[in-house]
Amino acid sequence: MRRPSPSTRKTAVPDPGDSPGPGATAAQLLDAAAEVFAARGFRDATVREICRRAGANVAAVSYHFGDKARLYAAVLRETGRRAAAVADPARDADPRQPAARRLEGFVRSLLSRILAGGPASLHGEILAREMIEPTEALDRVVSEFMRPQAEHLNGVIRELVGPRVPAAGIRRLGLSVVSQILFYKHCRPVLERLYPDQCPDAGRLEELTRHITAFSLAGLRGFARPRKPPAAD
Amino acid sequence: MRRPSPSTRKTAVPDPGDSPGPGATAAQLLDAAAEVFAARGFRDATVREICRRAGANVAAVSYHFGDKARLYAAVLRETGRRAAAVADPARDADPRQPAARRLEGFVRSLLSRILAGGPASLHGEILAREMIEPTEALDRVVSEFMRPQAEHLNGVIRELVGPRVPAAGIRRLGLSVVSQILFYKHCRPVLERLYPDQCPDAGRLEELTRHITAFSLAGLRGFARPRKPPAAD
Repeated sequence: MRRPSPSTRKTAVPDPGDSPGPGATAAQLLDAAAEVFAARGFRDATVREICRRAGANVAAVSYHFGDKARLYAAVLRETGRRAAAVADPARDADPRQPAARRLEGFVRSLLSRILAGGPASLHGEILAREMIEPTEALDRVVSEFMRPQAEHLNGVIRELVGPRVPAAGIRRLGLSVVSQILFYKHCRPVLERLYPDQCPDAGRLEELTRHITAFSLAGLRGFARPRKPPAAD
Repeated sequence: MRRPSPSTRKTAVPDPGDSPGPGATAAQLLDAAAEVFAARGFRDATVREICRRAGANVAAVSYHFGDKARLYAAVLRETGRRAAAVADPARDADPRQPAARRLEGFVRSLLSRILAGGPASLHGEILAREMIEPTEALDRVVSEFMRPQAEHLNGVIRELVGPRVPAAGIRRLGLSVVSQILFYKHCRPVLERLYPDQCPDAGRLEELTRHITAFSLAGLRGFARPRKPPAAD
């Protein structure tokens, strides 16, 4: 897993004359930390390993970020921004489209983030570890990245089911939609073993988007007022 | 996290005259290992810590199980059996009930496992770590525990949507149902922060069962042939 260290000159304390400069060191630390946090989680990642990967002195983390927890918070913010640059389910929506199309756009956008590999996936890898061992940093990720997306989705759902469904019902419906998408991230290893032919990659984005959208629109139709929700018998 | 060691006598090699006997030592190792694997995952768990918790000599793991990987496989089998004793979505189904009722039973059974705390939750905790760092042992968990449940669910769905839906479509529909349930396990830390009032515990089992069943039945209705699946526009 260890990568060759970049050729950054190692100094006891980073200084403004340092080549390629302290800004570059901070950026290298962020990149290295994202990989180490994704591979080990916050608890087991060490500042020593991060600095070695970044080709930086161990003092560089406290100089640029303060401590491991603040470096971690910075990594979550930076990887979140990069993931949002790939696709942002709230930002990418076109408000002129009808609600069903906007639901489809939400599904496609979040799925495309989940199926994307490479550096854009590090945010998701780190968040997957947060689901097992949450840290204080998760509060901010939820408020900065997830709440806006959830509110966007709930607004679309509100349009689809009408104003008479209570707010708690809208939230539960939103979770029924979003869970179908996140499943392909959180349960991928099971899927690879259970249905290897069904394992999604970027090439199946449209097929999966259509399936989840159709299932969700039909499910939501069952909750639209004034119609009665379907009973289980 | 460290518990006081049980008073098992420590001997260099466990022997049949050992009190309370090698069977008891194996059981204590299984219990201790389940907790350590749940807390650290397979990679970071150490035989040393497991033996310390079990009050056993470090030789006891190789004597009773062979090595760490085989102990881990035994832990997955044993915790899986315990979780299945709490609820088993495939076994608990009453074939005389109509398919919609059996779907509801599946949702309730799997949800009750997920919302259960205590020792029964260790299987789920270990599997959550497998979703991030899968090991070879996952193959067997999928074939022994997950595949029978998936096939049961798919049989119920087949009854609900009719014989003309292709097998791959049935599998995707099954994933749309099961993902809504597993979400409450895999994304719980987000839910606690996003909707603290919506965070499920065993007291909300019925409410959540009704919601997921109703959403799923409505969703499935949209796929039932000969009706056309709903379009996104």
